[in-house]
Amino acid sequence: MGQIEQARKGTITPEAQAVAAFEGVGVGMIMDGVARGAIVIPRNMGRATSPVGIGEGLSVKVNANIGTSRDRVDISEETSKLRAALESGAHTVMDLSTGGDLANIRRAILDDCPAPLGTVPIYQVATEAIALGKSFLDSTPDDWFRVIEEHGREGVDFITVHCGVTRDSVRTLREQGRELDIVSRGGALTAHWMDERGEENPLFARFDRLVEIARQFDMTLSLGDGLRPGCLADATDRGQLAELITLGSLQARAFAAGVQVMIEGPGHVPMDQIEANVWLEKRLCHGAPFYVLGPLVTDIAPGYDHITSAIGGALAAWAGADFICYVTPSEHLRLPTAEDVRTGVITARIAAHAADIARHRPASLERDLKMARARKNLDWKTQIETSIDPQLARSIHESLPSHDSDVCSMCGELCAIKIAQKKAKI
Amino acid sequence: MGQIEQARKGTITPEAQAVAAFEGVGVGMIMDGVARGAIVIPRNMGRATSPVGIGEGLSVKVNANIGTSRDRVDISEETSKLRAALESGAHTVMDLSTGGDLANIRRAILDDCPAPLGTVPIYQVATEAIALGKSFLDSTPDDWFRVIEEHGREGVDFITVHCGVTRDSVRTLREQGRELDIVSRGGALTAHWMDERGEENPLFARFDRLVEIARQFDMTLSLGDGLRPGCLADATDRGQLAELITLGSLQARAFAAGVQVMIEGPGHVPMDQIEANVWLEKRLCHGAPFYVLGPLVTDIAPGYDHITSAIGGALAAWAGADFICYVTPSEHLRLPTAEDVRTGVITARIAAHAADIARHRPASLERDLKMARARKNLDWKTQIETSIDPQLARSIHESLPSHDSDVCSMCGELCAIKIAQKKAKI
Repeated sequence: MGQIEQARKGTITPEAQAVAAFEGVGVGMIMDGVARGAIVIPRNMGRATSPVGIGEGLSVKVNANIGTSRDRVDISEETSKLRAALESGAHTVMDLSTGGDLANIRRAILDDCPAPLGTVPIYQVATEAIALGKSFLDSTPDDWFRVIEEHGREGVDFITVHCGVTRDSVRTLREQGRELDIVSRGGALTAHWMDERGEENPLFARFDRLVEIARQFDMTLSLGDGLRPGCLADATDRGQLAELITLGSLQARAFAAGVQVMIEGPGHVPMDQIEANVWLEKRLCHGAPFYVLGPLVTDIAPGYDHITSAIGGALAAWAGADFICYVTPSEHLRLPTAEDVRTGVITARIAAHAADIARHRPASLERDLKMARARKNLDWKTQIETSIDPQLARSIHESLPSHDSDVCSMCGELCAIKIAQKKAKI
Repeated sequence: MGQIEQARKGTITPEAQAVAAFEGVGVGMIMDGVARGAIVIPRNMGRATSPVGIGEGLSVKVNANIGTSRDRVDISEETSKLRAALESGAHTVMDLSTGGDLANIRRAILDDCPAPLGTVPIYQVATEAIALGKSFLDSTPDDWFRVIEEHGREGVDFITVHCGVTRDSVRTLREQGRELDIVSRGGALTAHWMDERGEENPLFARFDRLVEIARQFDMTLSLGDGLRPGCLADATDRGQLAELITLGSLQARAFAAGVQVMIEGPGHVPMDQIEANVWLEKRLCHGAPFYVLGPLVTDIAPGYDHITSAIGGALAAWAGADFICYVTPSEHLRLPTAEDVRTGVITARIAAHAADIARHRPASLERDLKMARARKNLDWKTQIETSIDPQLARSIHESLPSHDSDVCSMCGELCAIKIAQKKAKI
């Protein structure tokens, strides 16, 4: 039995207990959220992982994407990225590999990953077809479902499936026209397959089969936003909303069948449209957890997109988004390195934490208060230890120390805190 | 005659014209804003600089702080920081030096700086007293005014003066109590001087004298927030608001005398309090331009405070703040380097730009649209050139190129944009 079914029956699962303990809330709240589809605990029945709760009333979580591309296939580099993600505090990881032997890479990552792991099965369908010298267009619906089942059997905890990229939603998108068309890899693959074959998206047309596979492993469905905007000018357009409407309908069906569901969201969105995007997701998808990819609040900052998405992610999470997919400084430019992964995770965690504070999450201010008191006491050891990245904070601080050990080289003896305590020799 | 006086008389100044041209608005709007005190053009009459408009209806501007400390005095390093700030797009610069021969350093910076330059004269009062083996507490009100006049005579365009740190506002702060007391250097110095001498803040008690000096050079007064919160727990407390109320009253007096005024704002503020802080400043200070120092939306991220303040700065500017003081990755840890200056300016410019878009500033989306179209065309040259930091974008992109020159190594041939255009070989 999956989490939803057990929550409906009133069975307290060890996973719900672990989530409640981590969040500092009663287990009843977790079970209620799971039973209503407002909280998910992405965890494949066949794999032992540390349970993570995502959704209503919980602290905001952060996902890190890793994975090879055709231009760079190095399993040890990917396991380094995995370590970097976990060590810097990612709550979940997705393997988005598209180069090399995907099954091997995924298994290596699954073996090393105690956190919930997500994948995008259609990448494997496409990559395998090409590796075999065939075309992705020749892949059959059975190929798609076979790969999905394989992921479930191997222990993948959640999968992105672009079920809302339908002939209707794509027509809606094209009817309005876009600056930047479809920018989701899975969305573009699906639309291309539909176009060329003149068929409906199998993950939509045969959604019940997908639900049945997911139910078998209690694998959470992350309904992908294949039509998300890839630039500010395309944000919140008809195509994006047509897809979201479909996702809401599919969420209800999967949830009724006892399958946990998250909804993925944009993308590139101006600040003033973010709250409305979150509101619409919650309204149309029955309060299902919202998993945002950014949003990036400007298009012009490649190299700084961890920052553009921290602005958008903080705003989205404050407005109710539950789960932030990190973006690294390499976004739009190259495959990320392990160092990028680290920067991306910490930056997304800053956004998540700022939103937890803005939402008045219990105890969310505790660490900030500890830092404030360490600053008041000119206690550098505690300041460093309380930092979100002690290693970086220490290295910056020590690179240009003050002559006076109790202050920093910014103000030296003219430290406001020292002056206010009448301790400065001025 | 200063800008306000000329605007009131209907005289179109070359400065107002330059600002109008830069902003893409009519000069009448600029003159109206200046005449109402809603726009300032910080520009000392005695120094030729490129005019910059700050305030209502204008694009959000970014300031970079540079300057020595007692721990690091190197004029050539400071002029490097100045160059880094200007090259990366800072609209104004402040020299916050507190180490070495401040007058010499300031003159070197003034000579090299075509942008409006700001200072905090009380730093010089304190630094000189200490250098002469005396105590800052022995400085007299005349010393303070002498230094301010010296800055005006040398061509400083705007000065931060902590006029709202009064016996009353400090009493209000202490009556409530704070986690982190006073964290502004100027605020702490002023409060300490008042405490020990039992006297009122001369910049408050003799505000008319300050106004008279400023008027003489058309030097803009930036009324400092000496009581700004230094941690989230202290945000928007009685002391901060008592000071803001006083600043509103002083703004009206200075403005009536024809002196341009900005108001400085916090600091460390949770996301959900930022809009209210901006609203209060606009309400209490008669729409005067709001110059925010951050705000930082969490206390726990030293090393990443350019990011915590980009989140807060974007929100503040969207809510109506006009002018963002950058924060560098070195904040709370050490004196910033030239590289920190660069990172800080670009990050603050991202926040400013995101806010301009959210506020629907005319033409604010143009560059984003250009980037979107370059992405659609897989035109890497234009993508790099359109980036806010072409140098960084290029170096990341080229560090791990794709085997296919028209895509990047993130997706390789599985590039969504290429697939959507049916150009990918899949």
